[in-house]
Amino acid sequence: MRKHEVLLTGRIRDMMKAETDRLFHTYTVHALHRSEDPDALVEEVKDRITAIATNGVLGASGEFMARFPNLKAVICFGAGIDNVDLAYAKQQGIQVSNTRGVLNDDVANLAVALLLGISREIVEADKYVRRGDWIRKGKMGLQKSIRGRQVGILGLGGIGRDFAKKLEVFGCQLAYHNRCENKNIPYRYYSNLTEMTRDSEYLVVICPATSETRNLVDSEVIDALGPDGTLINIARGSIVDEEALVEALQDGRLGAFASDVFSHEPHVPEALLEMPNVIFAPHIGSATVDTRTAMGELMLKNLERFFAGEPLETPVRL
Amino acid sequence: MRKHEVLLTGRIRDMMKAETDRLFHTYTVHALHRSEDPDALVEEVKDRITAIATNGVLGASGEFMARFPNLKAVICFGAGIDNVDLAYAKQQGIQVSNTRGVLNDDVANLAVALLLGISREIVEADKYVRRGDWIRKGKMGLQKSIRGRQVGILGLGGIGRDFAKKLEVFGCQLAYHNRCENKNIPYRYYSNLTEMTRDSEYLVVICPATSETRNLVDSEVIDALGPDGTLINIARGSIVDEEALVEALQDGRLGAFASDVFSHEPHVPEALLEMPNVIFAPHIGSATVDTRTAMGELMLKNLERFFAGEPLETPVRL
Repeated sequence: MRKHEVLLTGRIRDMMKAETDRLFHTYTVHALHRSEDPDALVEEVKDRITAIATNGVLGASGEFMARFPNLKAVICFGAGIDNVDLAYAKQQGIQVSNTRGVLNDDVANLAVALLLGISREIVEADKYVRRGDWIRKGKMGLQKSIRGRQVGILGLGGIGRDFAKKLEVFGCQLAYHNRCENKNIPYRYYSNLTEMTRDSEYLVVICPATSETRNLVDSEVIDALGPDGTLINIARGSIVDEEALVEALQDGRLGAFASDVFSHEPHVPEALLEMPNVIFAPHIGSATVDTRTAMGELMLKNLERFFAGEPLETPVRL
Repeated sequence: MRKHEVLLTGRIRDMMKAETDRLFHTYTVHALHRSEDPDALVEEVKDRITAIATNGVLGASGEFMARFPNLKAVICFGAGIDNVDLAYAKQQGIQVSNTRGVLNDDVANLAVALLLGISREIVEADKYVRRGDWIRKGKMGLQKSIRGRQVGILGLGGIGRDFAKKLEVFGCQLAYHNRCENKNIPYRYYSNLTEMTRDSEYLVVICPATSETRNLVDSEVIDALGPDGTLINIARGSIVDEEALVEALQDGRLGAFASDVFSHEPHVPEALLEMPNVIFAPHIGSATVDTRTAMGELMLKNLERFFAGEPLETPVRL
């Protein structure tokens, strides 16, 4: 039997070797990044391509998709599909899938690690000991308990719910802001983000990056968080107005910041590099061997179901 | 009414100001550290002293307690009473109290923060970004999920149970080693520490420091943990054989180490200072404003009950 053909937009760096091998073994993969003349390759295969495999960074623009007249599916590795032109896909009847679900656990865990880490000053504590300050200066200052504090969650989707569930055991007050209230969820709903943030000590950003959420956490929201407040971002850098953030941290108008994502990754705002009340992570939310394996498996599953004519395992609603 | 007299062995650095003020306001406090001639002070007040207020570091030796013929209570600030001569207290009918219970939550949280922190390489991740490695070297390596991994808890007392409860939500397999099995506890019991450690990916030390637990985590236990294992200590430095630990980390026979306590605090083993697979914390387990306030309140409560002739709030079983 002839193998199905798949166009791969670039190296899926985050995929584990075993799953990458399976991808190449199962399909005839046309890998643009391995081609000396990608344009010629596209021209050669464009009529035969019904499925594109891509990732969150590369995505698939409308212009790119338009080059494949028989395209029926864009299968993404990763949760973020902000670089896939969903409007175009919808209009053309192209299905899109991502690898949500299997990564919720570890991304939510990173959010907990950042929240506990920044409130207990784990990174600063480590530096304090390594610098010899414990000997020279004596005890470190006191930190903050998270029990009883309100944590406002911006975006209570799959990851947000997992994160909230985990925080329950720490005795935090949980609140969320979504476009709509979910009556089945026991946490306090705020239709207004600034209002939620004013009542919260922590604001945790877990919503998708879309045109509506761009710079949603602006100077008004940051000021509502205030000098005792902490902003945590594990979603996308674009959701936070990074200039406003830097100014607020410089002026002491925001208490602390912990983030896995940045507007111009891998570049982070230079003004924050010496700040002790900041924890940086290099976009490692789903970066465990366990989760990356599961993501690869899920991407392969989506391809398999597409070619079998079955509904995708994790379709994106268009 | 004349105030009761309390001998204070030293400055209780960790107590919040409001509680310290209340101590001095409520009682006639004889503070040894404020006296120019502590020996003369002891001689002067020794017959009138029925209660000593102290802390975990200063404690109260048998020799010291013997100087107060009417001593009836040693009221400690902190959970650790390893520096109080409990055998002597028992023999003399001197009651001892600590401030356990109120500090469980934050100490357990620090253990969770260290466990998540070391498994997701939070400290190293922060350094990776600040050093510019994200730009120069690209993505950081993959980390480990904690889901499904066995966490062996050495010492399932109050803090241990709180810690275990919190870990349940992360889907860890929980096991514990105590002297005796507790039939009401759903976690797997091991009567043999080495055996538990061999089956575990994490060993978390939460037991009291006593003569029996000194160097309990020795080279045999450390080798049972192995190159993929992580040791976490939030109890006391004396429980871990620090020389064996350093050798195992240097040889790569132990995977990682995160600790809030050290054998010769504030000194830490110099050989570990450059290691990326180590997280240091400067004994901050209970160091939140919230918990330190609650500990001060509890110490005052124990003093109050003692002088009222009531049972202590948190007596230590002698």
